[in-house]
Amino acid sequence: MKPERNVETFLACDAAYEESKIVIFGSPFDSTTSYRPGARFASRTMRAESYGLETYSPTLDKDLTDMKIFDGGDLELCFGDTNSALADIENFTANILSDEKFPVMLGGEHLVTLGAIRAAAKKFPSLAVIHFDAHADLRDDYLGAKLSHATVIRRVYDILGDGKIFQFGIRSGDRSEFIFARTHTQMQKFDFTGLDEVVKNLGNTPVYLTVDLDVLDPGIFPGTGTPEAGGVSYRELLQAIFKVAENCNLIAADFVELSPPYDPSGISTATALKILREFLLKVR
Amino acid sequence: MKPERNVETFLACDAAYEESKIVIFGSPFDSTTSYRPGARFASRTMRAESYGLETYSPTLDKDLTDMKIFDGGDLELCFGDTNSALADIENFTANILSDEKFPVMLGGEHLVTLGAIRAAAKKFPSLAVIHFDAHADLRDDYLGAKLSHATVIRRVYDILGDGKIFQFGIRSGDRSEFIFARTHTQMQKFDFTGLDEVVKNLGNTPVYLTVDLDVLDPGIFPGTGTPEAGGVSYRELLQAIFKVAENCNLIAADFVELSPPYDPSGISTATALKILREFLLKVR
Amino acid sequence: MKPERNVETFLACDAAYEESKIVIFGSPFDSTTSYRPGARFASRTMRAESYGLETYSPTLDKDLTDMKIFDGGDLELCFGDTNSALADIENFTANILSDEKFPVMLGGEHLVTLGAIRAAAKKFPSLAVIHFDAHADLRDDYLGAKLSHATVIRRVYDILGDGKIFQFGIRSGDRSEFIFARTHTQMQKFDFTGLDEVVKNLGNTPVYLTVDLDVLDPGIFPGTGTPEAGGVSYRELLQAIFKVAENCNLIAADFVELSPPYDPSGISTATALKILREFLLKVR
Amino acid sequence: MKPERNVETFLACDAAYEESKIVIFGSPFDSTTSYRPGARFASRTMRAESYGLETYSPTLDKDLTDMKIFDGGDLELCFGDTNSALADIENFTANILSDEKFPVMLGGEHLVTLGAIRAAAKKFPSLAVIHFDAHADLRDDYLGAKLSHATVIRRVYDILGDGKIFQFGIRSGDRSEFIFARTHTQMQKFDFTGLDEVVKNLGNTPVYLTVDLDVLDPGIFPGTGTPEAGGVSYRELLQAIFKVAENCNLIAADFVELSPPYDPSGISTATALKILREFLLKVR
Amino acid sequence: MKPERNVETFLACDAAYEESKIVIFGSPFDSTTSYRPGARFASRTMRAESYGLETYSPTLDKDLTDMKIFDGGDLELCFGDTNSALADIENFTANILSDEKFPVMLGGEHLVTLGAIRAAAKKFPSLAVIHFDAHADLRDDYLGAKLSHATVIRRVYDILGDGKIFQFGIRSGDRSEFIFARTHTQMQKFDFTGLDEVVKNLGNTPVYLTVDLDVLDPGIFPGTGTPEAGGVSYRELLQAIFKVAENCNLIAADFVELSPPYDPSGISTATALKILREFLLKVR
Amino acid sequence: MKPERNVETFLACDAAYEESKIVIFGSPFDSTTSYRPGARFASRTMRAESYGLETYSPTLDKDLTDMKIFDGGDLELCFGDTNSALADIENFTANILSDEKFPVMLGGEHLVTLGAIRAAAKKFPSLAVIHFDAHADLRDDYLGAKLSHATVIRRVYDILGDGKIFQFGIRSGDRSEFIFARTHTQMQKFDFTGLDEVVKNLGNTPVYLTVDLDVLDPGIFPGTGTPEAGGVSYRELLQAIFKVAENCNLIAADFVELSPPYDPSGISTATALKILREFLLKVR
Repeated sequence: MKPERNVETFLACDAAYEESKIVIFGSPFDSTTSYRPGARFASRTMRAESYGLETYSPTLDKDLTDMKIFDGGDLELCFGDTNSALADIENFTANILSDEKFPVMLGGEHLVTLGAIRAAAKKFPSLAVIHFDAHADLRDDYLGAKLSHATVIRRVYDILGDGKIFQFGIRSGDRSEFIFARTHTQMQKFDFTGLDEVVKNLGNTPVYLTVDLDVLDPGIFPGTGTPEAGGVSYRELLQAIFKVAENCNLIAADFVELSPPYDPSGISTATALKILREFLLKVR
Repeated sequence: MKPERNVETFLACDAAYEESKIVIFGSPFDSTTSYRPGARFASRTMRAESYGLETYSPTLDKDLTDMKIFDGGDLELCFGDTNSALADIENFTANILSDEKFPVMLGGEHLVTLGAIRAAAKKFPSLAVIHFDAHADLRDDYLGAKLSHATVIRRVYDILGDGKIFQFGIRSGDRSEFIFARTHTQMQKFDFTGLDEVVKNLGNTPVYLTVDLDVLDPGIFPGTGTPEAGGVSYRELLQAIFKVAENCNLIAADFVELSPPYDPSGISTATALKILREFLLKVR
Repeated sequence: MKPERNVETFLACDAAYEESKIVIFGSPFDSTTSYRPGARFASRTMRAESYGLETYSPTLDKDLTDMKIFDGGDLELCFGDTNSALADIENFTANILSDEKFPVMLGGEHLVTLGAIRAAAKKFPSLAVIHFDAHADLRDDYLGAKLSHATVIRRVYDILGDGKIFQFGIRSGDRSEFIFARTHTQMQKFDFTGLDEVVKNLGNTPVYLTVDLDVLDPGIFPGTGTPEAGGVSYRELLQAIFKVAENCNLIAADFVELSPPYDPSGISTATALKILREFLLKVR
Repeated sequence: MKPERNVETFLACDAAYEESKIVIFGSPFDSTTSYRPGARFASRTMRAESYGLETYSPTLDKDLTDMKIFDGGDLELCFGDTNSALADIENFTANILSDEKFPVMLGGEHLVTLGAIRAAAKKFPSLAVIHFDAHADLRDDYLGAKLSHATVIRRVYDILGDGKIFQFGIRSGDRSEFIFARTHTQMQKFDFTGLDEVVKNLGNTPVYLTVDLDVLDPGIFPGTGTPEAGGVSYRELLQAIFKVAENCNLIAADFVELSPPYDPSGISTATALKILREFLLKVR
Repeated sequence: MKPERNVETFLACDAAYEESKIVIFGSPFDSTTSYRPGARFASRTMRAESYGLETYSPTLDKDLTDMKIFDGGDLELCFGDTNSALADIENFTANILSDEKFPVMLGGEHLVTLGAIRAAAKKFPSLAVIHFDAHADLRDDYLGAKLSHATVIRRVYDILGDGKIFQFGIRSGDRSEFIFARTHTQMQKFDFTGLDEVVKNLGNTPVYLTVDLDVLDPGIFPGTGTPEAGGVSYRELLQAIFKVAENCNLIAADFVELSPPYDPSGISTATALKILREFLLKVR
Repeated sequence: MKPERNVETFLACDAAYEESKIVIFGSPFDSTTSYRPGARFASRTMRAESYGLETYSPTLDKDLTDMKIFDGGDLELCFGDTNSALADIENFTANILSDEKFPVMLGGEHLVTLGAIRAAAKKFPSLAVIHFDAHADLRDDYLGAKLSHATVIRRVYDILGDGKIFQFGIRSGDRSEFIFARTHTQMQKFDFTGLDEVVKNLGNTPVYLTVDLDVLDPGIFPGTGTPEAGGVSYRELLQAIFKVAENCNLIAADFVELSPPYDPSGISTATALKILREFLLKVR
């Protein structure tokens, strides 16, 4: 036991950057969250609590210790300056992608996805996005702001255009969002019906998977900014993620909107971590 | 932005009294709660948190902004003097009913229902009550008190008599309550089996719907005074409420026993609000 | 109302020792819990909160007031000295068994089970163990310790040997545990499939039932040290316990790993109490 | 270690009734608390947490184990029926007093004091009351109720009359209360100035001491229903209690308004327990 | 009891705008808070909890019910767009000032002060600022942002220039801030020494008072974003505020940085409310 | 922004081991804590929260960024095996001391001090210990255990013998401990009276400083296992630490018994961090 520098990583994600195929990092930002802030604490809480999780998955019979994953820590993002924060996320993601690695970003509020998708869309012009969420996030502006957790998929749409966004589990939004979705995205309300077909049709298209964890039922995932009753179960979400991870040409992913201050028992963090582990073990 | 008086209402329930068909108000009383108090905070917490909810329902494709609902705020009830509190509730409800409006009361503990039903039964002598709850609430007295959250439906029975009370979801009580129910009420244990038939048989009978939210499973609704494992799901409750709202001659309703102090993540309040929104959008 | 000594018992478990067939006691110990301590508070929290529960079960149409159960309170166990704590538990359990009574132990962390099974295995050399849990608990050592919540079933195996341990609901562990289980225990992952057959085959074999309550889904049971998403429902666990209680030659049981500090709403304690009540009413 | 009945007492207060000079009991009632309920949990929380306290006082060089104190547990009081609850408290206190013992009551809200003083005033017609509190509690009614935590000292006044009530530490109330105090009680605002003289003048008069623990500064005593900044320190309160306990003809005492739900760190309960211990060791 | 619109105000601040001399409003914004968000909830928590406070001050023998104060509610500010939020605050404050009324703003994070002072400095070009705080808030930028809770007094300095800012209670900051203060502001570290002289020297100069409540010791005021041990007591702060309110030509004031999520016992909110009441009763 | 390994350190303690004079590390162990566990979380919570603290001290006009301090992270200690945990701590401390560096250990419960002092006493046979604490910690055993948080200073005494231990602030213990102290240690009850003389007399004797943070008043330091009213203030503790740091031949120090689960507002962690910063800036 000689003193060594204190390195903190997600469970077993302690490989060197060079040897890793996957790079995890946190984007601790929730500046536009108007209702209940706290998603900024998600990545560091997940990292700290990850040592309560096993590295082995009985479901998949695989172990994180057999993989090479690099944990890049958390970005230091500027609160109150949304443009600057998004630019930092884009830049960091672009670096990972240009090194031919697979970025896994942990939010933060959902808006952080925009930074990562900007980078992904530059490298993969034909990019499609699979979006699991309780909320449509298709507003054009929110309380006057164009950049908001409530507008993020609309801003993604501005980049990708029609037919590129596939939304599942949506059960909240204002009327205009659902009308917008009818013509511009493919939206499945409440559940994952139709995901099989979407996955099959996407074929080799590069796909970005963004998982707003509030797609889960608040019973199992209370720790989020705007809980919405009537969500999907843990097993349903896991199966949906497995489908995407197994069959799509996935090039990046994120998991957002865990809000530890609203998770006093810790089950939301534990559930997010388990989903992350299963995803890491499944992604090809 | 000129200074205006600070009016606080449930989400979008900002119509004037005169133009409104529905009147919401709170009865913040939990004085007889012997175990875990806190239901007194329900109505103001719901009002405060309602701005985290959308006005639009993707399930019903309807929007609260298209409706006229008046929010009468919370009654100022006397703690420690049950009779006086019930009289105030009865009086307030009677005023709404006599203006041919539909009262929606938010508890408080379940005993507040007695005040409202007293008013309703005076105006509608043939009144029936549909009661969703985990608990039978049929005790004749509780720790010596005749007026208690645990005796409220028995007191309602004293007013309405045999064959007028229809109980669903009941999974707790003492033996004598279940024996009482066999002859005096129609009780469905654990779930909503038989609701269709009850609704059909009621035909045009004026119906008061009282929803003790602890009928829900504690997984999705932890924030209540006496949580009982094995409850109904959010979707099951919603379907049951829709059945009643759509098919009965509903003349008033209440939603009781949300207890915010036992809801640190806020999912119980969020769920109660969503049920309230769906009910308001559905009631004819 | 004359002053009397203050006796605190689990709900209605106030019979004298001599007249009781069942003896409840608490083992408030969690010294080896490496992640999130708190199970030490389970038994006294359950006792204190039990007055929020009814004595009557609508499911079974039975009442605790018709039974004779003795509550022996909580053992005073030494923190930081695992051997001494286990010896105290073994000794206490042995006394109950030698009086031909049925011990029901409330944890504490899972390691307390080892003390009780040591006593049971001495009296019943052909003892079998039915084990409901999210975790395999089959490690040979944990951070260097042979006696740990993570090794408890392995230590039980050291006493009972092959073919005596029947595990259900397991969804977490390291790879070596699952490999060990293949040859040495009978393990059902995730659910209770196969329990019927196990129960039938056990016939008259004396059986110890150990229920790690984290076998439940964290949605309904958040208050535990290492919550694992994807667990069984309350009703599934209840049915499984009923099967064992009804059909096996049960000689003792325990319920462990409730951790009140991670249960701010109290639903985990309420659920544990309800399971305990149903078990007490069902055990033959 | 043979199974024994589970007796729970305040730390070391385990003497038999007959041999005890002092009798402790709890009055878990807070039904008239209009703002933040929770004082009902005080006595059982104090009992449960008392095992974290030492029996020995370094300040007094005395030990509870050298004393004979009986713990009578908590009264079972009817919520929602204030008259009945007060009658039970009066009756129980009268029994203790008629056995020539010294009652120490733990609230509950401050109104419980009325029950105990009713009993004390019957036995000691010349009774005086020393009252430590942040609030004057001299309203004639509160939201229409004559019996309320906010009117309790006024009701005591109705029994005892002018010149019998000595109030210290008062820093909150409405204007009318302070005007009333000028002619009818002796009130010291903010601190204990003048206590020496009061104590001296009381001579052999039988004295009831009622300590509303919110007289303490909220910094050290946050866990109370209506915290008021600017209170006295722990040492100041202790010195004041010592003065009364040492020099007055004290015949009963109470400590009220600890509210555990507002004491997440437990320091309020710990402080209340230490004050109780010091009082018990000091009272002659 | 006829249904009336639900108006929520700070305790007794229910006068009409026209007749009021003082206007209270909330600026629920904390978007630049990098460490622990939550100040956004301060004003509405204060409003909701204010009914636990008396309107009468025993210290001042004055009553809020004798005054005319208007409560303008909370501004709806855009999260994530700092410039827009500050503009709204400036505009709203300017309206109040132009109506010759006295604005009392409740934060929110400290940056909201910049919006109000921009308005005040336009109307009162010779404006001075008295600043009570634990933190210097004199950084030129913070994580790259010019507009931040950590730079707010520096931005105020940019408007007012040398010799116009008087800081008291400061006990935290980086070295450069303390160096800056030596030449550009008058800073008193740790306490209020010198306030008498400052007040005297200011004479008739228009003064804006900004109170960052974290100037208080965390023992009495735990509920704030960045608690700093070693603060002033409640009584010290009150005396300091009285000095300013009584002797200065005060034209506006604010109270900021209460953060309810870090105030589980509610003592910080209660203390903030009491300070606000005393200030309102004292300001001339 | 290129991905780098995620290194987490206490604020500004990011120097390399070789160049550092001071080495900080955590001993996350609380296995013998019988009452309220949680000190195990102290070091990682302090590390995580340290970014809310400034590196600069206005009191000392010094900055951590000007120093070279190495953060060795947290030891991985075995819960439930006290001997093994203490051996690991001793070994780790010995390594630091043999490299002529100054160890600063963060608990954990107080027992961890024993491991560090074992190492220090081997290297410095004439070692003296200065001990700040609310509790005497001089029991010979606790619930049968020789190694316990309640016996730690007694075990230190077993190593060092008479006249080597100087205790300040002690206000809790059982009678035997205070009797023991009269002959074997120098104990100052309640405060720091006499510290000046002790420091002067110690001259060049090597001194180990152990600070149980519960010596502080619970008002400012609620987050600890056994809070004791009547403690010293933050400023008093700081002055005492300064005296020792400035005048003694200090060779190691520790700060123990912060328990984050009992610190919901975070003020205890913030206070511990500030004391640590001031100590690091002051130690010669």
